[in-house]
Amino acid sequence: MSDMRVKVISVIPDARPDDFIQKTAIVIDVLRATSNMAVALSSGCRSILPVETVHAAAGAKRQGDILGGERHCRKIPGFQMGNSPTEYLAPEVAGKRIILTTTNGTRALQKARASWLLMAGSLLNAKACARTAMESGRDLTILCAGTRDEFALEDGIGAGLILEELMKLNGEHLTVNDFGKAMLELFHSIDGRLEENLLTSDSGVRLSKLGFGEDIRLCAQVNKYRLVPILRNGELVSHHVHEPEGSF
Amino acid sequence: MSDMRVKVISVIPDARPDDFIQKTAIVIDVLRATSNMAVALSSGCRSILPVETVHAAAGAKRQGDILGGERHCRKIPGFQMGNSPTEYLAPEVAGKRIILTTTNGTRALQKARASWLLMAGSLLNAKACARTAMESGRDLTILCAGTRDEFALEDGIGAGLILEELMKLNGEHLTVNDFGKAMLELFHSIDGRLEENLLTSDSGVRLSKLGFGEDIRLCAQVNKYRLVPILRNGELVSHHVHEPEGSF
Repeated sequence: MSDMRVKVISVIPDARPDDFIQKTAIVIDVLRATSNMAVALSSGCRSILPVETVHAAAGAKRQGDILGGERHCRKIPGFQMGNSPTEYLAPEVAGKRIILTTTNGTRALQKARASWLLMAGSLLNAKACARTAMESGRDLTILCAGTRDEFALEDGIGAGLILEELMKLNGEHLTVNDFGKAMLELFHSIDGRLEENLLTSDSGVRLSKLGFGEDIRLCAQVNKYRLVPILRNGELVSHHVHEPEGSF
Repeated sequence: MSDMRVKVISVIPDARPDDFIQKTAIVIDVLRATSNMAVALSSGCRSILPVETVHAAAGAKRQGDILGGERHCRKIPGFQMGNSPTEYLAPEVAGKRIILTTTNGTRALQKARASWLLMAGSLLNAKACARTAMESGRDLTILCAGTRDEFALEDGIGAGLILEELMKLNGEHLTVNDFGKAMLELFHSIDGRLEENLLTSDSGVRLSKLGFGEDIRLCAQVNKYRLVPILRNGELVSHHVHEPEGSF
């Protein structure tokens, strides 16, 4: 396999255009946007259109589309669905296009839009993301979405898990930036206490108070899905990762 | 003891004025500026004036002062000393004022200048910094200087060690932001491999190539000094931490 440089970025404002142009990128918003995207696509939704504003979401809606998203962690008035992955397990999303607007995740996707290949990553599909990144043959940028421009622990853990999966696939050919090294060590340190760390992170505490504890437990599952949401023509669609028998 | 909120910031540009006003702050540039400051003060230098530019350093020099610092890790032409802690072990610094300009460390001190109490922290004096912060009775901001606005692994490790020392002193009354939690886990994960991690960090690799490996080994020593460089009237002076017998 070829050499691969991996750069992990802690928050959206620290990302620069050069981090994406001609590169593969993974955007991570574990609680909850990018976890949600993996769940919705696994439930058979046709595609997800990420938009930055409520206004843009309403304007893009065509018949049959589902409007989803949150502001301050809660469902937006007039929208059919919120930002809970537990909602997107429902069979009614099958075959539909979802128009999704969230506070941090969709902003992070927007920032990384110039990437050669852009994925939405989470704990739920970390291994599938790592495999897809490796197959792209390009250098990789992992952008942690964070919360209101501050680092979010759960996104760092997600980056660390993806790095761990990359190490297993091609460890001797990886060059990782200092922040990525720190996130890999973070993941090693808390492995086995994943759900606990998600629950006690700033976002986890906030979501638990609002009654979304079940979402956190769902998002804490590792490598539940083999699919990766990838951006094609402005919408996220499902890319299925085919693996040798028993490797998942 | 009273409750204390600790915020760790990964790079200089992410710090905001509110992070410092009315707060205690620790600036960390493990390789090498803040390690250097601890060494120089332990060698008996009277004070250290941190300045941002070579021009300002030359302009501030009075008879007897020592000009020290680096650009691109190397000694500045016309300066007596570089930025190697091994140099500042020399007896000739005793009683002198050092005017120091470095690429990241002095910029970070400048950014944190509005703090109620400002310290220069490193692995060499982590416990003394933690003790001094605790005694200040204020909330604490730990600013990692980084390298050219990117996170530096060694500064994150330094922040993690200081947090570990704070936890030992007053763990049940600490509230730590997500980035701080990540740095604490990082420290736990690499404890016992400190020198190795400093040597393989981006700064460590760069310094080793330039022949400064000895500096890195010196900077990797944990709690070698009981003194803390603190800012008083624009200059760093030595604050000695008195501890119960045997606690260091």
